[in-house]
Amino acid sequence: MSAPRPVYDPSWDRANPNEVRRSIRERGYTGYTAGLAPGFVQANICILPKDWAEDFLLFCQRNPKPCPLLTRSDVGDPSLPALSDNIDIRTDVPRYQIFRNGEFTEEVTDIRSHWRDDLVTFAFGCSFSFEEALQDDGIPLRFLANNNVAGVYVSTMPTEAAGPFEAPLIVTMRSFTPQNAIRAIQITSRFPNVHGAPVHIGDPAQIGVDLAKRYQNVGDPTVGEGEIPVFWACGLTPQFAVMKAKPPFCITHAPSSMLVTDLRNSSLAVM
Amino acid sequence: MSAPRPVYDPSWDRANPNEVRRSIRERGYTGYTAGLAPGFVQANICILPKDWAEDFLLFCQRNPKPCPLLTRSDVGDPSLPALSDNIDIRTDVPRYQIFRNGEFTEEVTDIRSHWRDDLVTFAFGCSFSFEEALQDDGIPLRFLANNNVAGVYVSTMPTEAAGPFEAPLIVTMRSFTPQNAIRAIQITSRFPNVHGAPVHIGDPAQIGVDLAKRYQNVGDPTVGEGEIPVFWACGLTPQFAVMKAKPPFCITHAPSSMLVTDLRNSSLAVM
Repeated sequence: MSAPRPVYDPSWDRANPNEVRRSIRERGYTGYTAGLAPGFVQANICILPKDWAEDFLLFCQRNPKPCPLLTRSDVGDPSLPALSDNIDIRTDVPRYQIFRNGEFTEEVTDIRSHWRDDLVTFAFGCSFSFEEALQDDGIPLRFLANNNVAGVYVSTMPTEAAGPFEAPLIVTMRSFTPQNAIRAIQITSRFPNVHGAPVHIGDPAQIGVDLAKRYQNVGDPTVGEGEIPVFWACGLTPQFAVMKAKPPFCITHAPSSMLVTDLRNSSLAVM
Repeated sequence: MSAPRPVYDPSWDRANPNEVRRSIRERGYTGYTAGLAPGFVQANICILPKDWAEDFLLFCQRNPKPCPLLTRSDVGDPSLPALSDNIDIRTDVPRYQIFRNGEFTEEVTDIRSHWRDDLVTFAFGCSFSFEEALQDDGIPLRFLANNNVAGVYVSTMPTEAAGPFEAPLIVTMRSFTPQNAIRAIQITSRFPNVHGAPVHIGDPAQIGVDLAKRYQNVGDPTVGEGEIPVFWACGLTPQFAVMKAKPPFCITHAPSSMLVTDLRNSSLAVM
Protein backbone atom coordinates (compact mmCIF):
# COMPACT_ATOMS: atom_id res chain seq x y z
CA MET A 1 0.00 0.00 0.00
CA SER A 2 2.94 2.40 0.11
CA ALA A 3 2.54 4.83 -2.75
CA PRO A 4 4.83 4.59 -5.73
CA ARG A 5 6.83 7.79 -6.06
CA PRO A 6 6.37 9.65 -9.33
CA VAL A 7 9.29 9.05 -11.68
CA TYR A 8 10.25 11.87 -14.00
CA ASP A 9 9.47 10.85 -17.54
CA PRO A 10 10.27 13.62 -20.02
CA SER A 11 8.19 11.95 -22.73
CA TRP A 12 4.91 13.50 -21.59
CA ASP A 13 3.76 16.99 -20.75
CA ARG A 14 3.14 17.22 -17.01
CA ALA A 15 1.63 20.70 -17.35
CA ASN A 16 -1.29 19.54 -19.50
CA PRO A 17 -4.18 17.88 -17.64
CA ASN A 18 -5.24 15.92 -20.70
CA GLU A 19 -1.71 14.54 -21.10
CA VAL A 20 -1.58 13.69 -17.40
CA ARG A 21 -4.79 11.67 -17.67
CA ARG A 22 -3.53 9.98 -20.84
CA SER A 23 -0.34 8.93 -19.06
CA ILE A 24 -2.40 7.49 -16.24
CA ARG A 25 -4.81 5.77 -18.62
CA GLU A 26 -2.40 4.49 -21.27
CA ARG A 27 1.15 4.70 -19.96
CA GLY A 28 0.79 3.16 -16.52
CA TYR A 29 1.44 6.23 -14.37
CA THR A 30 0.35 5.22 -10.83
CA GLY A 31 2.02 7.89 -8.68
CA TYR A 32 0.93 10.92 -6.71
CA THR A 33 -0.75 13.76 -8.57
CA ALA A 34 0.67 16.64 -6.49
CA GLY A 35 2.67 18.91 -8.78
CA LEU A 36 1.05 17.58 -11.97
CA ALA A 37 -0.89 20.01 -14.19
CA PRO A 38 -0.25 22.99 -11.90
CA GLY A 39 -3.13 25.45 -11.88
CA PHE A 40 -5.75 22.80 -12.62
CA VAL A 41 -8.27 21.42 -10.17
CA GLN A 42 -7.64 17.97 -8.72
CA ALA A 43 -10.71 16.17 -7.43
CA ASN A 44 -11.41 13.72 -4.62
CA ILE A 45 -13.49 10.81 -5.91
CA CYS A 46 -16.16 8.69 -4.26
CA ILE A 47 -18.11 6.10 -6.27
CA LEU A 48 -21.24 4.55 -4.75
CA PRO A 49 -24.10 2.33 -5.87
CA LYS A 50 -27.22 4.19 -7.01
CA ASP A 51 -29.18 3.07 -3.94
CA TRP A 52 -26.81 5.07 -1.73
CA ALA A 53 -26.37 8.04 -4.03
CA GLU A 54 -29.46 10.05 -3.14
CA ASP A 55 -28.73 10.20 0.58
CA PHE A 56 -25.06 10.91 -0.10
CA LEU A 57 -25.97 13.77 -2.42
CA LEU A 58 -28.20 15.14 0.33
CA PHE A 59 -25.36 14.80 2.85
CA CYS A 60 -23.18 16.86 0.50
CA GLN A 61 -25.90 19.46 0.00
CA ARG A 62 -26.32 19.81 3.76
CA ASN A 63 -22.59 20.05 4.45
CA PRO A 64 -21.05 22.04 1.61
CA LYS A 65 -17.92 23.08 3.51
CA PRO A 66 -16.55 19.55 4.05
CA CYS A 67 -18.28 18.19 0.90
CA PRO A 68 -17.62 20.70 -1.89
CA LEU A 69 -19.21 18.68 -4.67
CA LEU A 70 -17.95 19.72 -8.10
CA THR A 71 -20.09 17.29 -10.05
CA ARG A 72 -22.05 14.03 -9.81
CA SER A 73 -22.16 11.66 -12.76
CA ASP A 74 -25.24 10.12 -14.27
CA VAL A 75 -25.94 6.58 -13.07
CA GLY A 76 -23.58 4.09 -14.71
CA ASP A 77 -21.90 6.80 -16.79
CA PRO A 78 -18.08 6.84 -16.39
CA SER A 79 -17.72 10.30 -17.94
CA LEU A 80 -17.66 13.59 -16.00
CA PRO A 81 -18.40 16.24 -18.64
CA ALA A 82 -18.41 19.06 -16.07
CA LEU A 83 -14.70 18.41 -15.44
CA SER A 84 -13.50 17.57 -18.96
CA ASP A 85 -14.91 16.22 -22.21
CA ASN A 86 -12.22 13.57 -21.97
CA ILE A 87 -12.47 11.71 -18.66
CA ASP A 88 -13.14 8.04 -18.06
CA ILE A 89 -13.35 7.64 -14.31
CA ARG A 90 -12.62 3.91 -14.66
CA THR A 91 -9.07 4.49 -15.91
CA ASP A 92 -8.04 8.09 -15.25
CA VAL A 93 -7.16 7.99 -11.54
CA PRO A 94 -3.66 6.62 -10.79
CA ARG A 95 -4.77 4.36 -7.95
CA TYR A 96 -8.16 3.45 -6.49
CA GLN A 97 -9.18 1.94 -3.17
CA ILE A 98 -12.09 -0.47 -2.97
CA PHE A 99 -14.19 -0.79 0.17
CA ARG A 100 -16.80 -3.45 0.92
CA ASN A 101 -19.19 -2.94 3.83
CA GLY A 102 -17.04 -0.04 4.99
CA GLU A 103 -13.81 -2.08 5.05
CA PHE A 104 -10.85 -1.52 2.74
CA THR A 105 -10.33 -4.61 0.61
CA GLU A 106 -7.93 -3.74 -2.19
CA GLU A 107 -6.02 -1.09 -4.11
CA VAL A 108 -6.14 -1.18 -7.92
CA THR A 109 -4.96 1.02 -10.79
CA ASP A 110 -7.97 0.49 -13.04
CA ILE A 111 -11.61 -0.20 -12.14
CA ARG A 112 -12.96 -1.32 -15.50
CA SER A 113 -13.39 -4.87 -14.17
CA HIS A 114 -15.22 -3.48 -11.09
CA TRP A 115 -17.51 -1.12 -12.99
CA ARG A 116 -21.27 -1.63 -12.75
CA ASP A 117 -24.22 0.02 -14.41
CA ASP A 118 -25.54 1.20 -11.04
CA LEU A 119 -22.44 3.15 -9.97
CA VAL A 120 -22.50 6.91 -9.45
CA THR A 121 -19.37 9.07 -9.26
CA PHE A 122 -19.03 12.05 -6.90
CA ALA A 123 -16.13 14.44 -7.55
CA PHE A 124 -15.15 16.95 -4.85
CA GLY A 125 -12.96 20.02 -4.85
CA CYS A 126 -9.96 19.79 -2.53
CA SER A 127 -7.75 22.16 -0.62
CA PHE A 128 -4.92 21.87 -3.19
CA SER A 129 -6.78 24.59 -5.12
CA PHE A 130 -6.82 27.12 -2.31
CA GLU A 131 -3.32 26.17 -1.19
CA GLU A 132 -2.14 27.19 -4.65
CA ALA A 133 -3.90 30.55 -4.21
CA LEU A 134 -2.24 31.01 -0.80
CA GLN A 135 1.19 30.24 -2.23
CA ASP A 136 0.58 32.55 -5.19
CA ASP A 137 -0.02 35.29 -2.62
CA GLY A 138 3.30 34.53 -0.91
CA ILE A 139 1.81 32.94 2.21
CA PRO A 140 4.17 30.20 3.42
CA LEU A 141 2.78 26.68 3.87
CA ARG A 142 5.66 25.08 5.73
CA PHE A 143 4.34 21.53 5.43
CA LEU A 144 4.53 21.65 1.62
CA ALA A 145 8.26 22.37 1.78
CA ASN A 146 8.55 19.24 3.92
CA ASN A 147 6.57 17.19 1.38
CA ASN A 148 3.81 16.91 3.97
CA VAL A 149 0.14 17.93 4.12
CA ALA A 150 -1.88 20.02 6.59
CA GLY A 151 -2.54 18.37 9.95
CA VAL A 152 -5.84 16.45 10.00
CA TYR A 153 -8.10 16.23 13.07
CA VAL A 154 -11.50 14.90 14.08
CA SER A 155 -13.32 17.84 15.66
CA THR A 156 -16.38 17.94 17.88
CA MET A 157 -18.13 20.25 15.40
CA PRO A 158 -21.18 18.46 14.00
CA THR A 159 -22.27 17.89 10.45
CA GLU A 160 -25.89 17.46 9.44
CA ALA A 161 -26.75 13.80 8.84
CA ALA A 162 -28.63 12.53 5.78
CA GLY A 163 -29.99 8.99 5.75
CA PRO A 164 -27.19 6.63 6.82
CA PHE A 165 -24.50 9.30 6.38
CA GLU A 166 -23.25 11.09 9.45
CA ALA A 167 -19.83 12.16 10.68
CA PRO A 168 -18.06 14.58 12.95
CA LEU A 169 -16.48 17.45 11.06
CA ILE A 170 -12.94 16.48 10.13
CA VAL A 171 -10.69 19.53 9.85
CA THR A 172 -7.28 20.46 8.52
CA MET A 173 -5.02 22.81 10.46
CA ARG A 174 -2.67 25.34 8.92
CA SER A 175 -0.70 27.73 11.09
CA PHE A 176 0.14 31.33 10.19
CA THR A 177 1.31 34.62 11.58
CA PRO A 178 -1.78 36.64 12.56
CA GLN A 179 -1.43 38.87 9.49
CA ASN A 180 -1.15 35.87 7.16
CA ALA A 181 -4.10 34.24 8.94
CA ILE A 182 -6.25 37.28 8.09
CA ARG A 183 -5.04 37.15 4.48
CA ALA A 184 -5.67 33.39 4.31
CA ILE A 185 -9.26 33.95 5.45
CA GLN A 186 -9.72 36.51 2.67
CA ILE A 187 -8.21 34.28 -0.01
CA THR A 188 -9.99 31.05 0.92
CA SER A 189 -13.31 32.91 1.21
CA ARG A 190 -13.08 33.32 -2.55
CA PHE A 191 -13.12 29.52 -2.96
CA PRO A 192 -16.38 28.20 -1.51
CA ASN A 193 -16.17 25.20 -3.87
CA VAL A 194 -12.95 24.01 -2.24
CA HIS A 195 -13.91 24.25 1.45
CA GLY A 196 -14.04 28.05 1.48
CA ALA A 197 -13.37 30.11 4.60
CA PRO A 198 -12.05 28.49 7.77
CA VAL A 199 -14.43 27.01 10.31
CA HIS A 200 -12.31 27.97 13.33
CA ILE A 201 -9.35 30.09 14.38
CA GLY A 202 -7.36 30.04 17.60
CA ASP A 203 -7.79 27.68 20.54
CA PRO A 204 -8.02 24.09 19.19
CA ALA A 205 -9.75 22.88 22.38
CA GLN A 206 -12.82 24.97 21.51
CA ILE A 207 -13.56 22.51 18.70
CA GLY A 208 -12.39 19.46 20.63
CA VAL A 209 -9.02 19.22 18.92
CA ASP A 210 -5.74 18.24 20.59
CA LEU A 211 -3.06 19.16 18.06
CA ALA A 212 -0.93 16.20 19.16
CA LYS A 213 -3.68 13.73 18.22
CA ARG A 214 -3.96 13.70 14.44
CA TYR A 215 -6.49 11.67 12.49
CA GLN A 216 -4.62 8.60 11.19
CA ASN A 217 -1.40 10.50 12.04
CA VAL A 218 -1.81 12.55 8.87
CA GLY A 219 -0.09 15.88 8.32
CA ASP A 220 1.89 18.56 10.11
CA PRO A 221 0.70 19.52 13.63
CA THR A 222 3.27 22.32 14.09
CA VAL A 223 2.21 25.78 15.27
CA GLY A 224 5.25 28.05 15.15
CA GLU A 225 6.15 30.69 17.74
CA GLY A 226 3.77 33.64 17.45
CA GLU A 227 1.53 31.78 15.00
CA ILE A 228 -2.18 31.09 15.23
CA PRO A 229 -3.79 27.81 14.10
CA VAL A 230 -6.55 28.10 11.50
CA PHE A 231 -8.92 25.22 10.76
CA TRP A 232 -10.73 24.34 7.54
CA ALA A 233 -13.39 21.72 6.85
CA CYS A 234 -11.72 18.65 5.32
CA GLY A 235 -12.73 16.37 2.46
CA LEU A 236 -12.06 13.34 4.61
CA THR A 237 -15.39 14.12 6.31
CA PRO A 238 -17.57 12.58 3.56
CA GLN A 239 -15.16 9.64 3.30
CA PHE A 240 -15.51 9.12 7.07
CA ALA A 241 -19.31 9.27 6.70
CA VAL A 242 -19.23 6.67 3.93
CA MET A 243 -17.02 4.27 5.89
CA LYS A 244 -19.32 4.64 8.88
CA ALA A 245 -22.43 4.01 6.77
CA LYS A 246 -20.84 0.77 5.46
CA PRO A 247 -22.27 0.63 1.94
CA PRO A 248 -21.78 -2.83 0.39
CA PHE A 249 -19.49 -1.35 -2.28
CA CYS A 250 -17.53 1.86 -2.65
CA ILE A 251 -14.53 3.04 -4.65
CA THR A 252 -12.39 6.10 -3.81
CA HIS A 253 -9.16 7.56 -5.14
CA ALA A 254 -6.10 6.48 -3.16
CA PRO A 255 -4.75 9.24 -0.90
CA SER A 256 -2.77 11.87 -2.86
CA SER A 257 -3.53 10.17 -6.19
CA MET A 258 -6.45 12.19 -7.44
CA LEU A 259 -8.42 12.94 -10.57
CA VAL A 260 -6.75 15.72 -12.58
CA THR A 261 -9.41 17.86 -14.29
CA ASP A 262 -9.45 20.49 -17.03
CA LEU A 263 -10.94 23.11 -14.66
CA ARG A 264 -8.58 25.88 -13.69
CA ASN A 265 -8.19 26.51 -9.95
CA SER A 266 -8.86 30.19 -10.58
CA SER A 267 -12.21 29.33 -12.18
CA LEU A 268 -13.41 28.14 -8.75
CA ALA A 269 -12.92 31.60 -7.25
CA VAL A 270 -16.25 33.38 -6.83
CA MET A 271 -14.55 36.71 -7.50
CA MET B 1 -16.32 69.73 27.11
CA SER B 2 -18.88 67.07 28.06
CA ALA B 3 -20.99 66.39 25.02
CA PRO B 4 -24.59 67.56 24.94
CA ARG B 5 -26.90 64.56 24.64
CA PRO B 6 -29.11 64.53 21.56
CA VAL B 7 -32.65 65.61 22.40
CA TYR B 8 -35.44 64.02 20.39
CA ASP B 9 -37.06 66.65 18.23
CA PRO B 10 -39.84 65.22 16.06
CA SER B 11 -39.84 68.29 13.84
CA TRP B 12 -37.01 67.02 11.60
CA ASP B 13 -36.30 63.83 9.75
CA ARG B 14 -33.40 62.02 11.41
CA ALA B 15 -33.24 59.45 8.61
CA ASN B 16 -32.35 62.00 5.93
CA PRO B 17 -28.70 63.14 5.84
CA ASN B 18 -29.61 66.45 4.24
CA GLU B 19 -32.14 67.16 7.00
CA VAL B 20 -29.58 66.17 9.64
CA ARG B 21 -27.07 68.66 8.26
CA ARG B 22 -29.77 71.35 8.02
CA SER B 23 -30.66 70.81 11.69
CA ILE B 24 -27.02 71.16 12.61
CA ARG B 25 -26.55 74.22 10.40
CA GLU B 26 -29.79 76.08 11.05
CA ARG B 27 -31.50 74.61 14.09
CA GLY B 28 -28.65 74.44 16.57
CA TYR B 29 -28.26 70.67 16.85
CA THR B 30 -24.92 70.12 18.66
CA GLY B 31 -25.20 66.49 19.81
CA TYR B 32 -23.70 63.16 18.84
CA THR B 33 -24.29 61.88 15.33
CA ALA B 34 -24.48 58.16 16.17
CA GLY B 35 -27.89 56.86 15.13
CA LEU B 36 -28.60 59.79 12.80
CA ALA B 37 -29.17 59.08 9.08
CA PRO B 38 -28.69 55.32 9.48
CA GLY B 39 -27.08 53.72 6.45
CA PHE B 40 -25.18 56.88 5.47
CA VAL B 41 -21.46 57.43 5.84
CA GLN B 42 -20.27 59.63 8.69
CA ALA B 43 -16.85 61.19 8.22
CA ASN B 44 -13.99 62.15 10.52
CA ILE B 45 -12.80 65.67 9.71
CA CYS B 46 -9.36 67.26 9.86
CA ILE B 47 -8.80 70.80 8.57
CA LEU B 48 -5.24 72.05 8.06
CA PRO B 49 -3.50 75.05 6.52
CA LYS B 50 -2.40 74.56 2.91
CA ASP B 51 1.29 74.51 3.90
CA TRP B 52 0.68 71.31 5.85
CA ALA B 53 -1.77 69.69 3.45
CA GLU B 54 0.65 68.14 0.97
CA ASP B 55 2.58 66.17 3.58
CA PHE B 56 -0.64 65.15 5.31
CA LEU B 57 -2.09 63.92 2.03
CA LEU B 58 1.08 61.89 1.51
CA PHE B 59 0.80 60.47 5.04
CA CYS B 60 -2.74 59.35 4.18
CA GLN B 61 -1.63 57.86 0.87
CA ARG B 62 1.11 55.91 2.62
CA ASN B 63 -1.15 54.65 5.42
CA PRO B 64 -4.54 53.94 3.87
CA LYS B 65 -5.72 51.56 6.60
CA PRO B 66 -5.65 54.10 9.46
CA CYS B 67 -6.24 57.06 7.09
CA PRO B 68 -9.08 56.04 4.75
CA LEU B 69 -9.41 59.39 2.99
CA LEU B 70 -12.81 59.82 1.35
CA THR B 71 -12.10 63.24 -0.09
CA ARG B 72 -9.90 66.33 0.22
CA SER B 73 -11.32 69.76 -0.48
CA ASP B 74 -9.83 72.38 -2.74
CA VAL B 75 -7.84 75.04 -0.88
CA GLY B 76 -10.15 77.49 0.89
CA ASP B 77 -13.26 75.77 -0.44
CA PRO B 78 -15.74 74.82 2.32
CA SER B 79 -17.72 72.47 0.07
CA LEU B 80 -17.11 68.72 -0.26
CA PRO B 81 -18.86 67.76 -3.51
CA ALA B 82 -17.68 64.14 -3.31
CA LEU B 83 -19.78 63.70 -0.16
CA SER B 84 -22.84 65.82 -1.03
CA ASP B 85 -23.75 68.75 -3.24
CA ASN B 86 -24.99 70.42 -0.09
CA ILE B 87 -22.23 70.55 2.52
CA ASP B 88 -20.63 73.59 4.11
CA ILE B 89 -17.89 72.24 6.34
CA ARG B 90 -17.94 75.52 8.34
CA THR B 91 -21.43 74.90 9.72
CA ASP B 92 -22.43 71.26 9.15
CA VAL B 93 -20.56 69.49 11.95
CA PRO B 94 -22.30 69.65 15.36
CA ARG B 95 -19.16 70.52 17.31
CA TYR B 96 -15.57 71.30 16.32
CA GLN B 97 -12.33 71.27 18.26
CA ILE B 98 -9.63 73.83 17.53
CA PHE B 99 -5.96 73.08 18.11
CA ARG B 100 -3.07 75.55 18.02
CA ASN B 101 0.49 74.22 17.87
CA GLY B 102 -0.84 70.76 18.67
CA GLU B 103 -2.71 71.89 21.80
CA PHE B 104 -6.49 71.89 22.18
CA THR B 105 -7.70 75.44 22.71
CA GLU B 106 -11.46 75.52 22.27
CA GLU B 107 -14.63 73.73 21.21
CA VAL B 108 -17.08 75.57 18.96
CA THR B 109 -20.28 74.76 17.06
CA ASP B 110 -19.51 76.83 13.97
CA ILE B 111 -16.16 77.71 12.37
CA ARG B 112 -17.23 80.50 10.02
CA SER B 113 -15.33 83.04 12.13
CA HIS B 114 -12.24 80.78 12.07
CA TRP B 115 -12.33 80.03 8.34
CA ARG B 116 -9.39 81.10 6.20
CA ASP B 117 -8.69 81.00 2.49
CA ASP B 118 -5.71 78.69 3.03
CA LEU B 119 -7.61 75.91 4.85
CA VAL B 120 -7.95 72.41 3.39
CA THR B 121 -10.48 69.85 4.62
CA PHE B 122 -9.73 66.12 4.85
CA ALA B 123 -12.71 63.79 5.33
CA PHE B 124 -12.10 60.18 6.40
CA GLY B 125 -14.28 57.10 6.47
CA CYS B 126 -14.83 55.65 9.92
CA SER B 127 -15.61 52.28 11.43
CA PHE B 128 -19.29 53.17 11.96
CA SER B 129 -19.78 52.07 8.34
CA PHE B 130 -18.36 48.59 8.79
CA GLU B 131 -19.94 48.21 12.23
CA GLU B 132 -23.29 48.69 10.53
CA ALA B 133 -22.40 45.92 8.06
CA LEU B 134 -21.38 43.64 10.94
CA GLN B 135 -24.65 44.29 12.76
CA ASP B 136 -26.65 43.77 9.57
CA ASP B 137 -25.04 40.32 9.41
CA GLY B 138 -26.12 39.56 12.97
CA ILE B 139 -22.66 39.79 14.53
CA PRO B 140 -23.00 41.14 18.08
CA LEU B 141 -21.03 44.25 19.02
CA ARG B 142 -21.53 44.23 22.77
CA PHE B 143 -20.10 47.69 23.34
CA LEU B 144 -22.80 49.31 21.19
CA ALA B 145 -25.51 47.89 23.45
CA ASN B 146 -23.68 49.58 26.34
CA ASN B 147 -23.56 52.90 24.47
CA ASN B 148 -19.79 52.48 24.26
CA VAL B 149 -17.26 52.24 21.43
CA ALA B 150 -14.56 49.69 20.56
CA GLY B 151 -11.52 49.70 22.84
CA VAL B 152 -8.74 51.98 21.53
CA TYR B 153 -5.03 51.19 21.91
CA VAL B 154 -1.65 52.55 20.83
CA SER B 155 0.14 49.61 19.18
CA THR B 156 3.81 49.10 18.39
CA MET B 157 2.94 48.58 14.72
CA PRO B 158 4.54 51.36 12.68
CA THR B 159 3.06 53.71 10.13
CA GLU B 160 5.06 55.25 7.32
CA ALA B 161 6.00 58.85 8.07
CA ALA B 162 5.54 61.73 5.62
CA GLY B 163 7.19 65.08 6.30
CA PRO B 164 6.36 66.07 9.89
CA PHE B 165 3.62 63.45 10.21
CA GLU B 166 4.41 60.24 12.02
CA ALA B 167 2.58 58.10 14.53
CA PRO B 168 2.36 54.60 15.93
CA LEU B 169 -0.60 52.69 14.56
CA ILE B 170 -3.56 53.27 16.84
CA VAL B 171 -5.96 50.32 16.77
CA THR B 172 -9.48 49.46 17.86
CA MET B 173 -10.27 46.08 19.42
CA ARG B 174 -13.47 44.15 18.94
CA SER B 175 -13.89 40.70 20.43
CA PHE B 176 -15.80 37.83 18.81
CA THR B 177 -16.34 34.11 18.90
CA PRO B 178 -13.86 32.50 16.46
CA GLN B 179 -16.60 31.92 13.89
CA ASN B 180 -17.79 35.54 14.09
CA ALA B 181 -14.16 36.70 13.91
CA ILE B 182 -13.78 34.88 10.58
CA ARG B 183 -17.04 36.42 9.34
CA ALA B 184 -15.97 39.88 10.54
CA ILE B 185 -12.74 39.57 8.55
CA GLN B 186 -14.77 38.71 5.44
CA ILE B 187 -17.21 41.58 5.91
CA THR B 188 -14.69 44.30 6.74
CA SER B 189 -12.47 43.19 3.84
CA ARG B 190 -15.24 44.53 1.61
CA PHE B 191 -14.75 48.01 3.10
CA PRO B 192 -11.18 49.14 2.36
CA ASN B 193 -12.33 52.77 2.51
CA VAL B 194 -13.31 52.43 6.16
CA HIS B 195 -10.19 50.72 7.56
CA GLY B 196 -10.83 47.42 5.74
CA ALA B 197 -9.62 44.07 7.05
CA PRO B 198 -8.14 43.76 10.54
CA VAL B 199 -4.43 44.35 11.11
CA HIS B 200 -4.12 41.72 13.84
CA ILE B 201 -5.95 38.82 15.47
CA GLY B 202 -5.21 37.00 18.70
CA ASP B 203 -2.47 37.78 21.21
CA PRO B 204 -2.51 41.55 21.93
CA ALA B 205 1.09 41.47 23.18
CA GLN B 206 2.31 40.66 19.67
CA ILE B 207 1.44 44.23 18.65
CA GLY B 208 2.49 45.76 21.97
CA VAL B 209 -1.03 46.10 23.34
CA ASP B 210 -2.07 45.55 26.96
CA LEU B 211 -5.87 45.38 26.85
CA ALA B 212 -6.08 47.03 30.28
CA LYS B 213 -4.27 50.14 29.02
CA ARG B 214 -6.60 51.96 26.64
CA TYR B 215 -5.69 55.11 24.74
CA GLN B 216 -7.30 58.00 26.64
CA ASN B 217 -9.41 55.34 28.43
CA VAL B 218 -11.64 55.10 25.36
CA GLY B 219 -13.89 52.12 24.66
CA ASP B 220 -14.63 48.60 25.80
CA PRO B 221 -11.61 46.37 26.63
CA THR B 222 -13.68 43.24 27.33
CA VAL B 223 -12.80 39.91 25.71
CA GLY B 224 -15.50 37.39 26.63
CA GLU B 225 -14.92 33.74 27.54
CA GLY B 226 -13.98 31.79 24.42
CA GLU B 227 -13.66 34.96 22.34
CA ILE B 228 -10.71 36.16 20.30
CA PRO B 229 -9.69 39.83 20.07
CA VAL B 230 -9.50 41.32 16.58
CA PHE B 231 -7.73 44.62 15.88
CA TRP B 232 -8.42 47.22 13.19
CA ALA B 233 -6.46 50.33 12.22
CA CYS B 234 -8.08 53.37 13.86
CA GLY B 235 -8.83 56.85 12.55
CA LEU B 236 -7.27 58.36 15.66
CA THR B 237 -3.90 57.54 14.05
CA PRO B 238 -3.88 60.57 11.69
CA GLN B 239 -5.21 62.77 14.51
CA PHE B 240 -2.34 61.55 16.71
CA ALA B 241 0.11 62.33 13.89
CA VAL B 242 -1.30 65.84 13.51
CA MET B 243 -1.10 66.59 17.24
CA LYS B 244 2.48 65.33 17.27
CA ALA B 245 3.43 67.47 14.25
CA LYS B 246 2.04 70.57 16.03
CA PRO B 247 0.75 72.58 13.09
CA PRO B 248 0.02 76.20 14.10
CA PHE B 249 -3.69 75.71 13.39
CA CYS B 250 -5.97 72.71 13.01
CA ILE B 251 -9.70 72.02 13.31
CA THR B 252 -11.26 68.59 13.83
CA HIS B 253 -14.76 67.30 14.54
CA ALA B 254 -15.41 66.74 18.26
CA PRO B 255 -15.42 63.04 19.21
CA SER B 256 -18.65 61.28 18.18
CA SER B 257 -20.00 64.44 16.50
CA MET B 258 -19.14 63.82 12.90
CA LEU B 259 -19.97 64.99 9.41
CA VAL B 260 -23.06 63.20 8.07
CA THR B 261 -22.72 62.64 4.31
CA ASP B 262 -25.02 61.61 1.47
CA LEU B 263 -22.89 58.54 0.67
CA ARG B 264 -24.47 55.23 1.55
CA ASN B 265 -22.37 52.89 3.69
CA SER B 266 -23.03 50.12 1.19
CA SER B 267 -21.53 52.26 -1.59
CA LEU B 268 -18.15 51.94 0.15
CA ALA B 269 -18.16 48.14 -0.23
CA VAL B 270 -15.85 47.05 -3.04
CA MET B 271 -18.16 44.15 -3.81
